[in-house]
Amino acid sequence: MTRITPVLLAGGSGTRLWPLSRKSYPKQFAPLLGEESLFQASVRRLSGSAAGPEWALDFDAPVVVTGNDFRFIVAEQMGAVEVDPGAVLIEPEGRNTAPAILAAALHLAARDPEAILLVAPSDHVIPDAAAFHEAVARGLSAVAEGRLVTFGIRPTHAETAYGYLEVPGLPEEAQEPLPLRRFVEKPEAEAAARMLAKGTFLWNAGIFLFAAKDILAAFRAHAPDLLEPVEAAVREARPDLGFLRLAPGPWARTREISVDYAVMEKAANLSVVPYGSAWSDLGGWDAVWRESLPDDAGVVLTGGATAIDCRDTLLRSDSQQLEIVGIGLRNIMAVAMNDAVLVADMSRAQDVRKAVEVLKAKGVPQAGQFPKDHRPWGWFESLVVGPRFQVKRILVHPGAALSLQSHVHRSEHWIVVAGTARVTVGDEVRLVTENESVYIPLGAVHRMENPGKVPMVLIEVQTGAYVGEDDIIRYEDVYART
Amino acid sequence: MTRITPVLLAGGSGTRLWPLSRKSYPKQFAPLLGEESLFQASVRRLSGSAAGPEWALDFDAPVVVTGNDFRFIVAEQMGAVEVDPGAVLIEPEGRNTAPAILAAALHLAARDPEAILLVAPSDHVIPDAAAFHEAVARGLSAVAEGRLVTFGIRPTHAETAYGYLEVPGLPEEAQEPLPLRRFVEKPEAEAAARMLAKGTFLWNAGIFLFAAKDILAAFRAHAPDLLEPVEAAVREARPDLGFLRLAPGPWARTREISVDYAVMEKAANLSVVPYGSAWSDLGGWDAVWRESLPDDAGVVLTGGATAIDCRDTLLRSDSQQLEIVGIGLRNIMAVAMNDAVLVADMSRAQDVRKAVEVLKAKGVPQAGQFPKDHRPWGWFESLVVGPRFQVKRILVHPGAALSLQSHVHRSEHWIVVAGTARVTVGDEVRLVTENESVYIPLGAVHRMENPGKVPMVLIEVQTGAYVGEDDIIRYEDVYART
Repeated sequence: MTRITPVLLAGGSGTRLWPLSRKSYPKQFAPLLGEESLFQASVRRLSGSAAGPEWALDFDAPVVVTGNDFRFIVAEQMGAVEVDPGAVLIEPEGRNTAPAILAAALHLAARDPEAILLVAPSDHVIPDAAAFHEAVARGLSAVAEGRLVTFGIRPTHAETAYGYLEVPGLPEEAQEPLPLRRFVEKPEAEAAARMLAKGTFLWNAGIFLFAAKDILAAFRAHAPDLLEPVEAAVREARPDLGFLRLAPGPWARTREISVDYAVMEKAANLSVVPYGSAWSDLGGWDAVWRESLPDDAGVVLTGGATAIDCRDTLLRSDSQQLEIVGIGLRNIMAVAMNDAVLVADMSRAQDVRKAVEVLKAKGVPQAGQFPKDHRPWGWFESLVVGPRFQVKRILVHPGAALSLQSHVHRSEHWIVVAGTARVTVGDEVRLVTENESVYIPLGAVHRMENPGKVPMVLIEVQTGAYVGEDDIIRYEDVYART
Repeated sequence: MTRITPVLLAGGSGTRLWPLSRKSYPKQFAPLLGEESLFQASVRRLSGSAAGPEWALDFDAPVVVTGNDFRFIVAEQMGAVEVDPGAVLIEPEGRNTAPAILAAALHLAARDPEAILLVAPSDHVIPDAAAFHEAVARGLSAVAEGRLVTFGIRPTHAETAYGYLEVPGLPEEAQEPLPLRRFVEKPEAEAAARMLAKGTFLWNAGIFLFAAKDILAAFRAHAPDLLEPVEAAVREARPDLGFLRLAPGPWARTREISVDYAVMEKAANLSVVPYGSAWSDLGGWDAVWRESLPDDAGVVLTGGATAIDCRDTLLRSDSQQLEIVGIGLRNIMAVAMNDAVLVADMSRAQDVRKAVEVLKAKGVPQAGQFPKDHRPWGWFESLVVGPRFQVKRILVHPGAALSLQSHVHRSEHWIVVAGTARVTVGDEVRLVTENESVYIPLGAVHRMENPGKVPMVLIEVQTGAYVGEDDIIRYEDVYART
């Protein structure tokens, strides 16, 4: 039985899957395929234990590396799949994969330098967990020899959105670790076709298996400048509500660089385990379309969607209240949410990122802001904003509490529609349950808590001259936001 | 100065402009081009007076013929453009144009058989009102001779969605009434091209000018079976809150038939006034695109819309909260609303109707129901429906009142966010103003009124086991709905 500690990278904030993936709620946390998010699927895939005829793996509690804005989403989503993290490291700022992996390795090596780490992005699709576990098990012999193992996906088409790994030879049945010949950058279409034909190239999935001491040795050898600041950031990390905040001062001194550039492309001790089952990094809506099993006409319908005479088309509604209809479409992807709709030619999937830049430049809030705003205590969404008023739906997790606060410009009416709230207004504290309401006069110091065992949902109607999020004075906050 | 009474046909409920046009809120009432609805633009175009060097017109208060569901929309929209109707005739059921026009002619002839009627659909676009007034004036000489005048639009392309009018000859400068040779049904593409080339065909706009006595004579001669039931429906019409309800019994005995089939194609005394300025019946989103002045790339953006590398494409957001983005599109029309999104190839504009049939068969409420529900007293829209609760925004016009009512399954919380409400709960009546709230317990008899001079807006939060519209017991209703 080999113990393996998963290291899940969950700090990215891609925009190629806009409008579902946004800066404030990126792709890995969105339910792109099915009910579960990619992050949740990754957490579950790398939990518990797994065994084959000749191997047995036991996954330790994972270390998650993420950004400050996502820490409560991580906690909420791990809670929902009932996996406790070993640690959640908060990056003060995103610095690409090298500093993140180094921080996780240092954190784990302090306890056990021999620990075996499986480093994986949390936004990939790997439908066959058993096949993946077996590939991991096959990598262990190389890890035992002090090698850094990467996983190479057997390509199914001449993809230009992935980097490639060249190996000396690749028999069809090869499953054992192979020596790596070289990394190849994302190719042009022609080069991709040549590599596919040659048959000795694999997709670089960015998934790694190694012992903590070996990756640290590799960093020492190939990216020594990262060691001092990241060591300091880990050493001076501050525990905060179950998260571990890497120290911002030292972290600011790290370079932004990928682990491939910083270490892997320079290391001589790399092995590649070929992986022949399905894999995708869902790098665009075309990939989501492909992974969603199109019907005979090439049509994928998700949510309330209707296609009439369409071919090779994705029609997707991500809102219960929204119906999307396509007529006579060819090679179109259309994704509709409550606040944003994307319609694009399928060949332009990689340009969605560009579109988001255009929206940002126009000052359109949908460019980065998700309609549901996740907070330590739950989430809220704005239902309607009008002149001098706003209506919000607010969900508070069991046991959670909002800060003790007041507003200068608005009064609030709260109507509880599910669960029970404990409400403080001035000196008075009372329980408010379904179908009861509370009035918070302008200026009154107030707090909302959920003392119960089920989520509490309330409708908040704000009235006043200004109803922006920044009209808030915090007096006390269990999440240290005062 | 010639007095003319406009007769506006506003009973249709087309679905080719879904999702903006729906059974509950059809095209003529939607703000398709600019802020004003097509109905409002039609009302304004045919109001006041107009004069040229040799003519002067004075428009009487218009007679509007519409359906029961639309009567309050008609009243509200005419109020907004400050034109009072001469009469609003309510058709118990839609029967196409012949019975509607006959009813209006009978209603007006009772007062003055010599009255000159200008009958027009209320969902057409005629940008140049002055040119149209001049065309009307040119038709008067023929009306004076007892002729029925129709208007023929000089075609700009080989359109297959319109019927045609053939005239014996059509010099480029012809503006005076010409004799009609024959009506031509909507043609195939080839026939349309032939007619365009021949140069003696005009589009049939369905706009007519005649004396009341002459159209009655024509009905008597060519569709005598319609006279008895429509005469009875007008004679027994019941005034109701400023509307005139045609009697449903006799109305049920009328045939459903267009005025072209019933009368015009048979009458020998038809004249055609050629009309050379822009006109469109906005019969599909492709027409809306064309009339919205596409830019050099053929792109039309309406509302929050962004196009990247698109050509010949309509991107339209009809919600303030919704941003639509198109990338790399060719010949696509995409229309987004809060509850429904249409994406179609431009060539399939006429198939939108089919799509609505498919949605209807699937039981999708968006097929026919508009998100804003217009009522005699104002409108409401559902903001969110959850388990055991619903949140609505409600607007009540000044002076209007909802029925005295109660509910079996739900309690209601009302929070006024604009204006002032007079609220009855049980025996108590009180004024509730901005930022005040009221609780309506389950079963309590209650009423909401707006006694003020400005619209009253409130947020209603319903909680209970069932929050459907049909949980309502009405005790008193100023709109006679008990």
